[in-house]
Amino acid sequence: MTLAAIADVGRDRVRGGYSRHLFEPADLELREWFVERAIRIGLDVETDRNGNLWAWWGTPGPNAVVTGSHLDSVPGGGAFDGPLGVVSALDVVARLKSAGVVPSRPVAVLVFAEEEGSRFGVACLGSRLMTGAIDVHSARALTDAAGVTLAEAASAAGVDPAHLGRDDEALARIGVFVELHVEQGRGLVDLGAPVALASSILAHGRWRITVTGEGNHAGATPMARRRDPVVAAARAIVAVHDAALDSPGSRATVGRLSVVPGGTNVIASSVTAWLDARAATDALTRGLVDEIRRRVDDAVADSGCSVAVAAESWSDLVEFDPDLAAGFSGTLGGVPLLASGAGHDAGVLAAHVPSAMLFVRNPTGVSHSPEEFAEQGDCDAGVDALESLLRSLL
Amino acid sequence: MTLAAIADVGRDRVRGGYSRHLFEPADLELREWFVERAIRIGLDVETDRNGNLWAWWGTPGPNAVVTGSHLDSVPGGGAFDGPLGVVSALDVVARLKSAGVVPSRPVAVLVFAEEEGSRFGVACLGSRLMTGAIDVHSARALTDAAGVTLAEAASAAGVDPAHLGRDDEALARIGVFVELHVEQGRGLVDLGAPVALASSILAHGRWRITVTGEGNHAGATPMARRRDPVVAAARAIVAVHDAALDSPGSRATVGRLSVVPGGTNVIASSVTAWLDARAATDALTRGLVDEIRRRVDDAVADSGCSVAVAAESWSDLVEFDPDLAAGFSGTLGGVPLLASGAGHDAGVLAAHVPSAMLFVRNPTGVSHSPEEFAEQGDCDAGVDALESLLRSLL
Repeated sequence: MTLAAIADVGRDRVRGGYSRHLFEPADLELREWFVERAIRIGLDVETDRNGNLWAWWGTPGPNAVVTGSHLDSVPGGGAFDGPLGVVSALDVVARLKSAGVVPSRPVAVLVFAEEEGSRFGVACLGSRLMTGAIDVHSARALTDAAGVTLAEAASAAGVDPAHLGRDDEALARIGVFVELHVEQGRGLVDLGAPVALASSILAHGRWRITVTGEGNHAGATPMARRRDPVVAAARAIVAVHDAALDSPGSRATVGRLSVVPGGTNVIASSVTAWLDARAATDALTRGLVDEIRRRVDDAVADSGCSVAVAAESWSDLVEFDPDLAAGFSGTLGGVPLLASGAGHDAGVLAAHVPSAMLFVRNPTGVSHSPEEFAEQGDCDAGVDALESLLRSLL
Repeated sequence: MTLAAIADVGRDRVRGGYSRHLFEPADLELREWFVERAIRIGLDVETDRNGNLWAWWGTPGPNAVVTGSHLDSVPGGGAFDGPLGVVSALDVVARLKSAGVVPSRPVAVLVFAEEEGSRFGVACLGSRLMTGAIDVHSARALTDAAGVTLAEAASAAGVDPAHLGRDDEALARIGVFVELHVEQGRGLVDLGAPVALASSILAHGRWRITVTGEGNHAGATPMARRRDPVVAAARAIVAVHDAALDSPGSRATVGRLSVVPGGTNVIASSVTAWLDARAATDALTRGLVDEIRRRVDDAVADSGCSVAVAAESWSDLVEFDPDLAAGFSGTLGGVPLLASGAGHDAGVLAAHVPSAMLFVRNPTGVSHSPEEFAEQGDCDAGVDALESLLRSLL
């Protein structure tokens, strides 16, 4: 099987690539496709309390070998980020089944909901809810760009919002979790290898920088009478960038902006800039954000606007189980270990159950873009590696 | 009648105020409301080739006295900008009719389509199409944020896109056009008067600044490897603002931004910033934009991104017919004349037919915002003034 089966689902006519956001039509279509495909290879599918999909080979139970990833995308994302891990997991299970393997423990393919946080703002929402890493009351109240809450969207998709939240029962079934994912940098290109195991994930988080000014008419309001939050936010964005440049190894990005109301002939009343910040350790990341707060305050100071920086989500530095990674590397004949700058559901699970990740080479390193790519040969190598790991566990 | 009749149509749950965009449900509902209201007071309604609505008192024909404004809004706009002129016009016609006035020439209430340009980017689209001020082929191809073309949207709303464009027949029917509008600055507050006549409209136009970089992953891409168009666009926005500050009397605004793809964990691939620029004369406005181009090029130069500035629409300085304005001022007992920073359909018509505008006091001067306001007493004074002008013409 290849990604071709879902190549037409959720294409973004405006941005290019794919926009597949939680519980929106494209995501629902992918979820349905997953269910059908899993049933066709003889798996039993269930949806957990948080909208994550499980396809079981054998009786659901503790100590299961679980593998999977996510189907949702960033706006205008690539074809591989997420689906590659799901398709590869289904492929491996199908192969093991047709090879007559009789697993010694339950196996499941797991699809996490809203990994990218593109609709409700919080990345790895499905795994965070399952592990209790996000307060369920605030999660229910998260809103999308149209003002729809997570509770409303879940309800519309047949997931009871009253049952969202920490799911110890689901978590207790996972003996080990392995996520295969396209690499989102050029680590494997530099190493000249098709696959790697993850060693760690940068500490990272999301903050919301809101600049409030005074909305007014763009033609009728003299420059001197303005309190324009777009100009103030622009200065703040430059300050964010400079703060990260001045802190080696750190990364700070504003990739999403909301200008309210957003008319060409309108001085905006407020701007929200989402900040994604990452650094090598928790302390360095916190320090970076403190420095960003100081610089943003300075940048906005003379504009007549006010600014607030609110934390939205946070992920500690993840160090994947070193013994598991070393053992897996041995199983695979010594594949390299690679640190990741990108967050993953496996990183959220790692604090609770032994977890590992397999990365597949990305020839340009570009991800979260229609340009994202992986060669078929490398994808095949990823499937082979995932199969070897699962065989070693069964 | 007051604006209360349409107070619930098109409320914007996210931005506050109203979002009523051409041929979207709220706009269609307002158009229907207008048709019903006009029919109820005995007018004959027709839609012209460009989607503008005409409600006729008497046989449609040349030398008509035409008054009206628009029903669409900016995103999250106020209640008055546009609808006040339409409601007042209907009100005056109803009053004249019930007073037994027998007009010596045809009278029409005119509603222009897409005055704000909020959906398709070009302000005064209905009047520009009618007067041939915009090329009809480029107009048909204008797209909204979802990629829908004007031709598609018109077709869906029952307006044949093949018939869009210059409409000499419609234009020839207008003997004189009077538009009543809420003021969008504090001119009447400073003068201590409830109404004024327009003397002129600043030269103004819209440009689209597109900054193109390289989309990538916000976590996996080191700062030094980025070509981030959000940071480059931020520097460009500051440059726009500074250029206007350095050119006294000029106004330059970025009030609308589109970040593609627009994910929190995504370095964008491109940013479009819409520029609204205005100055006292055509030459000063052109000069301002030339200066902005230079500064924007400089601002983006070191970012690894490219930038293009494309003209989207242009309006020459409008000087309203001075004799008409002087006569009207006399009719109204010497109301003041006021220059406008805001563009209007009356400004587009002024190059073709005798046109005038009545402004109603806005106590805060805030417009294009939910805070936009006019006191009932001032609105009543506006209706009285419009009635006097129409009586003087009939």
